[in-house]
Amino acid sequence: MANSKYEYVRAFEESDVLLPSTWIVIRIDGRGFHKLSAKYEFEKPNDKRALNLMNAAAEGVMKELPDLVLAYGVSDEFSFIFHKDCTLFERRESKLVTTVVSTFTSYYVYLWPSYFENKPLFPPLPSFDGRAVLYPIDRILRDYVSWRQVDCHINNLYNTTFWALVQKGNMNGTDAEKELMGTVSSDKNEILFSRFGINYNNEPEIFKKGSVLYRDYANTIATSSSFTTLTTEPNLPKAEETPASAPESSEMPIPDEPPAPKSKTQAAKEQKLRKRARIAIEHVDIIRDEFWMQRPWILSGKAGKGGR
Amino acid sequence: MANSKYEYVRAFEESDVLLPSTWIVIRIDGRGFHKLSAKYEFEKPNDKRALNLMNAAAEGVMKELPDLVLAYGVSDEFSFIFHKDCTLFERRESKLVTTVVSTFTSYYVYLWPSYFENKPLFPPLPSFDGRAVLYPIDRILRDYVSWRQVDCHINNLYNTTFWALVQKGNMNGTDAEKELMGTVSSDKNEILFSRFGINYNNEPEIFKKGSVLYRDYANTIATSSSFTTLTTEPNLPKAEETPASAPESSEMPIPDEPPAPKSKTQAAKEQKLRKRARIAIEHVDIIRDEFWMQRPWILSGKAGKGGR
Amino acid sequence: MANSKYEYVRAFEESDVLLPSTWIVIRIDGRGFHKLSAKYEFEKPNDKRALNLMNAAAEGVMKELPDLVLAYGVSDEFSFIFHKDCTLFERRESKLVTTVVSTFTSYYVYLWPSYFENKPLFPPLPSFDGRAVLYPIDRILRDYVSWRQVDCHINNLYNTTFWALVQKGNMNGTDAEKELMGTVSSDKNEILFSRFGINYNNEPEIFKKGSVLYRDYANTIATSSSFTTLTTEPNLPKAEETPASAPESSEMPIPDEPPAPKSKTQAAKEQKLRKRARIAIEHVDIIRDEFWMQRPWILSGKAGKGGR
Amino acid sequence: MANSKYEYVRAFEESDVLLPSTWIVIRIDGRGFHKLSAKYEFEKPNDKRALNLMNAAAEGVMKELPDLVLAYGVSDEFSFIFHKDCTLFERRESKLVTTVVSTFTSYYVYLWPSYFENKPLFPPLPSFDGRAVLYPIDRILRDYVSWRQVDCHINNLYNTTFWALVQKGNMNGTDAEKELMGTVSSDKNEILFSRFGINYNNEPEIFKKGSVLYRDYANTIATSSSFTTLTTEPNLPKAEETPASAPESSEMPIPDEPPAPKSKTQAAKEQKLRKRARIAIEHVDIIRDEFWMQRPWILSGKAGKGGR
Repeated sequence: MANSKYEYVRAFEESDVLLPSTWIVIRIDGRGFHKLSAKYEFEKPNDKRALNLMNAAAEGVMKELPDLVLAYGVSDEFSFIFHKDCTLFERRESKLVTTVVSTFTSYYVYLWPSYFENKPLFPPLPSFDGRAVLYPIDRILRDYVSWRQVDCHINNLYNTTFWALVQKGNMNGTDAEKELMGTVSSDKNEILFSRFGINYNNEPEIFKKGSVLYRDYANTIATSSSFTTLTTEPNLPKAEETPASAPESSEMPIPDEPPAPKSKTQAAKEQKLRKRARIAIEHVDIIRDEFWMQRPWILSGKAGKGGR
Repeated sequence: MANSKYEYVRAFEESDVLLPSTWIVIRIDGRGFHKLSAKYEFEKPNDKRALNLMNAAAEGVMKELPDLVLAYGVSDEFSFIFHKDCTLFERRESKLVTTVVSTFTSYYVYLWPSYFENKPLFPPLPSFDGRAVLYPIDRILRDYVSWRQVDCHINNLYNTTFWALVQKGNMNGTDAEKELMGTVSSDKNEILFSRFGINYNNEPEIFKKGSVLYRDYANTIATSSSFTTLTTEPNLPKAEETPASAPESSEMPIPDEPPAPKSKTQAAKEQKLRKRARIAIEHVDIIRDEFWMQRPWILSGKAGKGGR
Repeated sequence: MANSKYEYVRAFEESDVLLPSTWIVIRIDGRGFHKLSAKYEFEKPNDKRALNLMNAAAEGVMKELPDLVLAYGVSDEFSFIFHKDCTLFERRESKLVTTVVSTFTSYYVYLWPSYFENKPLFPPLPSFDGRAVLYPIDRILRDYVSWRQVDCHINNLYNTTFWALVQKGNMNGTDAEKELMGTVSSDKNEILFSRFGINYNNEPEIFKKGSVLYRDYANTIATSSSFTTLTTEPNLPKAEETPASAPESSEMPIPDEPPAPKSKTQAAKEQKLRKRARIAIEHVDIIRDEFWMQRPWILSGKAGKGGR
Repeated sequence: MANSKYEYVRAFEESDVLLPSTWIVIRIDGRGFHKLSAKYEFEKPNDKRALNLMNAAAEGVMKELPDLVLAYGVSDEFSFIFHKDCTLFERRESKLVTTVVSTFTSYYVYLWPSYFENKPLFPPLPSFDGRAVLYPIDRILRDYVSWRQVDCHINNLYNTTFWALVQKGNMNGTDAEKELMGTVSSDKNEILFSRFGINYNNEPEIFKKGSVLYRDYANTIATSSSFTTLTTEPNLPKAEETPASAPESSEMPIPDEPPAPKSKTQAAKEQKLRKRARIAIEHVDIIRDEFWMQRPWILSGKAGKGGR
């Protein structure tokens, strides 16, 4: 940017550096996706092509931004998590948020034809908004992720039951809504099973648990299989009955140490590992400790299988 | 978002409402476009397809966001301007910035094949970052726009001369850079003319002035022709010689009134006008008063030809 | 601050520079002054000693901070206004706010014995909180000041009537409150006049209009008698009846020019004028144009009698 | 604040709520205390009356704001620490910062005559500025406090030696400065001992360690005696030699749990304990674990002797 008498206007740019040593969550949401899902005739209550496209776009983001340690997606929303020690773009908020949103959008539009062959895009086009939220300690970061996964569960159970009533029970939307008013989880499970023969536990994991993306340094993913075959979700609360209480303390010790500086060689080596790592896309419980204990590099931020 | 014991994490979301009655400029920049222009073999110093694609994407943004009153683009950068009275998204910064960036990206990727038929995109994909800057009064907003257009002029004159030395003068980059070190505008004009027979004034306006987009309520664009045939740019300073002084006061009276509330009917009517208006894309001087006096609706924010 | 391994904690300090070319209002409020006024037996509805102490403390602040162009006080609240071009402390918000609050507090406690000889302070001590608010143009800054003065008028009319009912009408507080519920200004004026023989217009100006402090470069206007003898306040709305409409445009042209840089000599000369100027303390209408037109240096920020 | 057409200006007030579950440090500094210490002839290098006045003012702040868990002072600076779970004033930054600064100033001016009997204050008066800084985890909060205490040590050793050279060695300031240039701690200790017979370890603790204030729920202060008789400070680094490395991990486990909600009864009971607790003022090592382990209520935020 060259010098001129007008350059004084640069002084109006404000600093937006995010607090150091703090988790950065960037949550993005589809804009007007209710309309968009009608326009392109998404299947109800879940459209697998649409979910897989979201995941593929998120994978693109994870690959282009190696500093991301985790992403969690549900419906038309995705949360991208930069490690608390991340110094990308000097932690400038606008830069971090817009880069994630733009990269996601870019992949979403680019990959659309691979998932919706017969439904070409036309304006107005899909777009996403986003925001950054800070979380000071590991425990609260995990509670954020749990919040989104509980939300996924609650919404999906509702939607599954609602659309069963509409699609198989021949109700109209208003009646289905009335039918569900005041019901708790067990009621919905009961409706699904007794009226439509649907065992909610057998619904696809991607619908019930959403999608979690991370760098899979431990190529032997054998360990995670126990999760993908889970058919119960013991930790998922019957949300309506849950009192607004604070999280119980976890069994897992969460240290929350201040950042230990790394040598340049070490940092470069880790960055290389991050870029090379396969991105895992799984539909597993991320509320309980197991997920985090088996992938210690996510919370530690240290690239590599050991990662503690 | 359903209720659960984890929902307390929402309290970590911070308010980011922008100061009312203040101009909002969202400037976006291509990320790594130096590399990208090499990857897809953009022409030097300017690639018309690339510029037209930028403009087409900006047009998409203007159409999807009727609250935008102006956009100005140069190279891989675009500034989008929301009127100071704009209340879109309650003026939440993240929402405004990410929506502009995402919509722009969406159109850029979607329209790419129309401009680069034989050069299909492949990852890593184009993306943009962006930020919001506030300007309290009309005069300073205009100085912002002037800053960008002066920048366009200075960079383009430099690039035009540099690439003439390289492409027609058979210099390598390092030598061309040396040749230009310390030169002022007249020197570069002279090099272009005496060595390569190029009259810089005859260069395409889109290269010299960048691109300005606005809602053209006055369909008869006749008036703007006087600008497009301009072959001199008297107000564009020879930047290197410009002392860092403050802007001279303009001849044009700039009132800066606080917002006058509109009736709902009036507001709805104006929004309709905005949506229906043709988006003009011009390559004209936006530093001098003429541009603004002939299109009073831009600074007033009042939709319609009168617009005062 | 010396160097040590702990110094990394400085990186957690965030920038809080306020938008340039924008008016800075610092409004401070007495903390728990309801209790405090009981503890030291302030007279009701207005205690002249307490108001004069507030004004004297504000004068101390004006003297120690020459960059302040205006202060307006009512009850236990004071608004201090830095000119939009002010660059004191590089416009760092915390520094500006805390310096004003601390200096005010310092004078308030220091001067207390001069106004309340027989009522020595004892803990808990008086204290004030404060905040900065930005206003982008002169018109809105004036509307801010008008807001506070209208507030003063409305509250004082209410309080005067309420305490007349209690002190002279032998009502208890609850009954007086009931009596006033739903009344408009004319009703209160009527109660005061018919029941207690009080003509509200004859109440002291300091109660009705609050106190305005500024640098009085035009020593000759010292008296400003035309204002202080005002017995009507035609511009003060009967607030309860005022529709929440936008401000009418003023007769006074308000230019809102971007800052013109000054030579160092000029800046130093003006700063000297500011420090030397007598601080005027008046109880006048600051809603209408007259006040501002006769003291052009307040809005222009230029020290000296001319001040345009 | 009453209703009027001007009230729209309230919309310009911005939210400044601080991130939840994060330590809030409010550091205040004397404004122009170099001049002030000359004006009132403070003793060099340390004036006990001035330090005791600072501590007394800080005690006043601690008493008026029971949410504060710790304060640390050195020279004309004081850091006040609100527990990370503090919700005072809904964590509004301006309110927290200005209340601390104003209350401190109030006590400072009020108590001045008790410490400087023969030196009455006169304008310009003492004032303080302040700012808030957030620290996400206990370890970093402790590093902040350590940073200040190391700073105290380094500056005091320097000042003690400098003033010995000037006051007892008959050097002028410039020569003393030169003499000390490039010296490390051991050099200064050597100068003090060999030239002036001063054993730095025997200097008063208040000079060497600064002052720490906290609520002393464990009335039996016996435990802290081991600290106050300390004559060595093994953990205080020879600062000049300290490489800018990261803090070593502490022996003390620091849990950093998210806030556990308390019943209203419990919260009220704790607030009562806070208000009643004696404020301890000590001059002890706050870098090592001992201080924190013996007063667990400081980091836990739980009022009462147990406090874990």
